[in-house]
Amino acid sequence: MIQTPYLLFLGDAPDPLTAKVAQGIKDWRPENAVGQLSLPGCKANLGLTEMTVEEAVAAGAKTLVIGVANRGGKISAAWMEVLERALISGMDLASGLHNLLRDEPSLSALAEAHGRALHDVRVPEVEYPIASGEKRSGMRCLAVGTDCSVGKMYTTLAMDKAARDMGVKSAFRPTGQTGILITGEGVPVDAVVADFMAGSIEWLSPDNDGDHWDFIEGQGSLFHPSYSGVTLALIHGGQPDALVLCHEPTRPHMRGLPSYSVPTLEALHEQALAMARVVNPACEVIGVSINTQHLSDVEAEAYLAEVEEKMGLPTVDPFRQGAKRLVQALPGVGV
Amino acid sequence: MIQTPYLLFLGDAPDPLTAKVAQGIKDWRPENAVGQLSLPGCKANLGLTEMTVEEAVAAGAKTLVIGVANRGGKISAAWMEVLERALISGMDLASGLHNLLRDEPSLSALAEAHGRALHDVRVPEVEYPIASGEKRSGMRCLAVGTDCSVGKMYTTLAMDKAARDMGVKSAFRPTGQTGILITGEGVPVDAVVADFMAGSIEWLSPDNDGDHWDFIEGQGSLFHPSYSGVTLALIHGGQPDALVLCHEPTRPHMRGLPSYSVPTLEALHEQALAMARVVNPACEVIGVSINTQHLSDVEAEAYLAEVEEKMGLPTVDPFRQGAKRLVQALPGVGV
Repeated sequence: MIQTPYLLFLGDAPDPLTAKVAQGIKDWRPENAVGQLSLPGCKANLGLTEMTVEEAVAAGAKTLVIGVANRGGKISAAWMEVLERALISGMDLASGLHNLLRDEPSLSALAEAHGRALHDVRVPEVEYPIASGEKRSGMRCLAVGTDCSVGKMYTTLAMDKAARDMGVKSAFRPTGQTGILITGEGVPVDAVVADFMAGSIEWLSPDNDGDHWDFIEGQGSLFHPSYSGVTLALIHGGQPDALVLCHEPTRPHMRGLPSYSVPTLEALHEQALAMARVVNPACEVIGVSINTQHLSDVEAEAYLAEVEEKMGLPTVDPFRQGAKRLVQALPGVGV
Repeated sequence: MIQTPYLLFLGDAPDPLTAKVAQGIKDWRPENAVGQLSLPGCKANLGLTEMTVEEAVAAGAKTLVIGVANRGGKISAAWMEVLERALISGMDLASGLHNLLRDEPSLSALAEAHGRALHDVRVPEVEYPIASGEKRSGMRCLAVGTDCSVGKMYTTLAMDKAARDMGVKSAFRPTGQTGILITGEGVPVDAVVADFMAGSIEWLSPDNDGDHWDFIEGQGSLFHPSYSGVTLALIHGGQPDALVLCHEPTRPHMRGLPSYSVPTLEALHEQALAMARVVNPACEVIGVSINTQHLSDVEAEAYLAEVEEKMGLPTVDPFRQGAKRLVQALPGVGV
């Protein structure tokens, strides 16, 4: 578990999109961000107070989070100076980069010397159990997609926010590095050893109050041959009471697989629900979340109406419209 | 890849069942076994020539394989002496035990000093790729089960043997430690990191002659919540042309899960085929393999006939009857 609040490190980000991890933290957990630190030439700006490492510590920051993707896979010398100063000044470091903090000798040595933690959130920090399949108390909603990267994280974050706004007890349960950095905890399920995948999701979403909802971030797709096993482990470990179908309507083929066409929402409905009912016979598909970023306002409105009619389910783009209608469709929540 | 042939180490096995790895090697790849080595008190006997380490080396053995499960998770002092002598005498070691050869300091040191390999087959030795999903040449048959441990390895080994006997080009592709020790190569898919599971199966079963059949050992079950993700990775990485449904009819519930009932063969047929057709629209279910070890001869015969009638598919117990009828049902093989 990563100590909050954070100082968000933007480095020398060449554009705002490169800082999407930092932007996600600021958008979804603003209370976790005490300020930002940019290097000269940085083209990203979250609009938070610009702080030195020392100012951030004084303001209560516990962890410096690398909020940008770096280029070329190397942590640059310019970054290193800030990261070293953060450890010396009493902050932990957290990163979702492929190249690991722990593999930088100077960072390892300083963390050891100063008793600080290095969180490489792509690497599991826990020995997960093998899944038991036993029924857990509390309610769970899982996002499943027709493809990878169609908005499953966004959908579950938006549902969690809408639930809180409506007074529903709720938690977002991240399963990828961006989500883990946003909340400070979670399971990097892609990096878990096969035998323990479903168990890691049981661990992530334990027993809870009967009226509490966990919104579990989905990964991959049952129809994406590279990652489908991870998706099924999420369905079986997650034991969902509710599924939300996620879709991006302009994609010409499955992500990274030119010879695979994207399945229909109907096919996703059928297969995901059949698999979910193995662990929870009461599971229902409660709505559809469409990522309409590549459609105009008029096109988006028409497409959402068409899907809602065809599927007979509440259908929204949570980015344009929020996720309140999806939360209202959860069993026991109501209007 | 483990060097063959082997000396099969039976240790101080308290009963024949404990030596099932050694028995599997002797049954399925007798050409891989030059002899056996038992310690005083051993209650297992494969009927092979009893040899010292030195005699085995003289007879051409390249690897000592630990063919027994040990008790308590410790490699005993009595075993250690033989294992050390094998390394000194020029053999590699191979083991499927949970406790690893490489974690025994004296074995590591001797292997290093003598240039020998320690194969812990539960641990992947390869950096597998992420699955591409691209169509590969050659034909593939995968065993899928209603549950874990219903005879998937046995079925695919028996089909491989029957195919060879019929003059069909064939390979058995192991995905668990026993199978890997039998053939000397394979993928311990349970131990592969999630993102690379399907890719490891693509690696295991590469392009081949158009009339060559790979018989891929299945793992877990789409209906077993602890391991279903591994099963789906096998289906999508395996890209099967043919599925064989495996079932054990006397099981009261899913293995290790008292609250889960075993699915019907019809449910397995539907779900496994739907998932397989994502990667290979031509895939067919070609037969059923029943493990009738807990039925009498009369019961087994009646049950096999009943399933064959109900499913409309060749239905055999490969242990009682061999797997020839299953191989004959493969597309392009014929009678």
